[in-house]
Amino acid sequence: MIENYNDIAITDTRRKILNIIDKTLIAMDPENAIKNFIEKNNIKFDSKRIFLIGFGKAAFKMYSGIRPFILKDLVYASIIVPDDEKTNDYNELRILRGTHPFTGDLSVSSSISMLSGLKNLNENDLVIVLISGGGSSLFEIPEDGINIDDIKNISKTMMDKGCDIYELNMVRSMLSKVKGGKLATMLYPARVISFIISDVKNDDLSIIASGPLTRIDYRIEDLMETIKKYLGNDERIKMYRNIDDIYFNNVKQYIILKNRDFLDYIYSNINDDAVNLGSNFSGNVEDLSLILHNILKNIYSSKRKPFYFMLGGETTVDVKGHGSGGRNQELVLRFMKNSSNSEVYTIASFGTDGIDGVSPAAGGIVDSDHEIDNINEYLNRNDSYNLLIKNHGAIITGRTGNNVSDIIIGLYYNK
Amino acid sequence: MIENYNDIAITDTRRKILNIIDKTLIAMDPENAIKNFIEKNNIKFDSKRIFLIGFGKAAFKMYSGIRPFILKDLVYASIIVPDDEKTNDYNELRILRGTHPFTGDLSVSSSISMLSGLKNLNENDLVIVLISGGGSSLFEIPEDGINIDDIKNISKTMMDKGCDIYELNMVRSMLSKVKGGKLATMLYPARVISFIISDVKNDDLSIIASGPLTRIDYRIEDLMETIKKYLGNDERIKMYRNIDDIYFNNVKQYIILKNRDFLDYIYSNINDDAVNLGSNFSGNVEDLSLILHNILKNIYSSKRKPFYFMLGGETTVDVKGHGSGGRNQELVLRFMKNSSNSEVYTIASFGTDGIDGVSPAAGGIVDSDHEIDNINEYLNRNDSYNLLIKNHGAIITGRTGNNVSDIIIGLYYNK
Repeated sequence: MIENYNDIAITDTRRKILNIIDKTLIAMDPENAIKNFIEKNNIKFDSKRIFLIGFGKAAFKMYSGIRPFILKDLVYASIIVPDDEKTNDYNELRILRGTHPFTGDLSVSSSISMLSGLKNLNENDLVIVLISGGGSSLFEIPEDGINIDDIKNISKTMMDKGCDIYELNMVRSMLSKVKGGKLATMLYPARVISFIISDVKNDDLSIIASGPLTRIDYRIEDLMETIKKYLGNDERIKMYRNIDDIYFNNVKQYIILKNRDFLDYIYSNINDDAVNLGSNFSGNVEDLSLILHNILKNIYSSKRKPFYFMLGGETTVDVKGHGSGGRNQELVLRFMKNSSNSEVYTIASFGTDGIDGVSPAAGGIVDSDHEIDNINEYLNRNDSYNLLIKNHGAIITGRTGNNVSDIIIGLYYNK
Repeated sequence: MIENYNDIAITDTRRKILNIIDKTLIAMDPENAIKNFIEKNNIKFDSKRIFLIGFGKAAFKMYSGIRPFILKDLVYASIIVPDDEKTNDYNELRILRGTHPFTGDLSVSSSISMLSGLKNLNENDLVIVLISGGGSSLFEIPEDGINIDDIKNISKTMMDKGCDIYELNMVRSMLSKVKGGKLATMLYPARVISFIISDVKNDDLSIIASGPLTRIDYRIEDLMETIKKYLGNDERIKMYRNIDDIYFNNVKQYIILKNRDFLDYIYSNINDDAVNLGSNFSGNVEDLSLILHNILKNIYSSKRKPFYFMLGGETTVDVKGHGSGGRNQELVLRFMKNSSNSEVYTIASFGTDGIDGVSPAAGGIVDSDHEIDNINEYLNRNDSYNLLIKNHGAIITGRTGNNVSDIIIGLYYNK
């Protein structure tokens, strides 16, 4: 999967880390993941009329994995993937395109078109829904009286004012016809089985692709308070519908792959002393680099021997410049910038979808034996890619067709 | 396994942690561990004359697990276990007793007696050696010209002067007829298969029970320097024999269970966000309690949600008083003592052999909702057990017949 392996595998430790990253991306491929999950949990698809819809970066690979189990009774299949996602042809599969990270008209037209194939569903029908990261922007149909630009502007206003994902998700599910459990109302009374790849903190079903099949219980007061806080008295967001339980009775949702699965696979493939810090790391990338130094220094002070470490999650970057780069590439450079002479390390950080921010790279790798100069200068321009590519430090995989947010892996000790 | 469960399971989180500890002690039982290892690795015992010797806290349970695989061709079996270790009767097994943690005459006489059954070994014979923690003191025969009190005094002098385990091990293997690979010379030319449960940092074969079957390459200069550093010009330690490779050609050593296995089992049984800090933690117990606070605070500052944590290893305690307690019980009390009001936690620490220091307990459990007073007073007397037992905090299992050193497990977040 790593396209520029020879350029960046310049030490034994780098080779070991890059080999494990490669091996993990292959083992955790969505096609394998959904197949293994179905077999392991002995999931049956007993219906004469099976419909399939899907949206997100992993939709195509998830479809490839489930296809053999359902083809016999499949009457309709359509997915929405990012415009530059690699796919190949299955005659029966309608592949539609959408935009990511920001939704737009293409996503809306594709969403309407995808749903149009789900006609006259009855209780004997089975609808399979493949959900993965990126689904929030790829799968979107505004509520009546709202247009897609309203949704884009409201989202941007809230994010610029530093809202958290729960506040954003609450408002977006008001503005959308398909989020916050509303898709479930469209599929009723058919049985629904949803397979989900989680790219969000704590694998919260109401947040992944904005929970199209997940009932969200908002208190009206919280909703009004959030609107007022970020949007003043915005007239457009006045509708609120509590969805009846009946729409969720026939809905089963399975998370088939998450950040922790990547970490556990990496951990079990490292035959050295290893520290698995788990998933759900978040916050600003500069803060995390400092936090990571503190954690590793303290661990070393007791272990007193080199150890591998791994953790997962998703940080945020203060975007000030117009360079090419991303949070993962910034993290490794900031880790180097914030390191002391006594610290000996190799650290890699990558997006499991293969795309780190606005750059051709999936992430970056650096080590204390190969110091990099002018880090601050490039960070100030958010140009981490252009510094790393010149220093054997950019990890390039291309789109992986997967997405469980980011993974950090390294080796650490003190002289 | 936990005998006083009802007294200490006083919160939901404590119940979850104690249940996992109980489940882990059962799953990791040496009898299961050796059986699973033999089956998983398809190990064959093809010899008409099988001899078995074993020493350490887990020797009896390891024997119970291997017995069905070898009984048919078993011609001799004898083990040495601590004087208060629970065993029951197998007609064919000679159970001998030794002393722990300090060696002595009983260990020496039992070691001579155990080896006496290994007569006229030839290359078609197979000798199985079961090695586990405590073996250093239970299995000991002094070199000619050295008596057991010499070994005890020299060990005590070195430990009191703060030597590390490698220095101690180097000198002890000079003084012993059976350590530092010398047992291998006694078993030659028979084939030897050794099954080992590791209770030491980094699972170093030369250190577990002082490496009876492990060739140790000492540089004479290092040995002389160590003797001079701790023992002046001690005449008794002058012999040094480099053991020829030939004695190790037929020796296979398998580590069947180690600290990390306990942690991995606990990690996979916690269906919440979990941090596995791994094994090999060491150093003074007060230092580790402070280090642990630093690590957990930093992790929380990025995760911002409660998480379980686990780690393993072995700390040291400054023994000043004559109270009843141990390093695990001190750790949880020191963790409480060093916590701030914003920290919400439950923490348990226990010795996997069921014996924490000089006390009836395996370890201790405390939580931030049940503050304990007068901690310093009891710590100054090294009397942690008597404080914990009064505060629903002593974990009592009795000897477990296992030993992979200590495990710490808890839940942590900040208000």
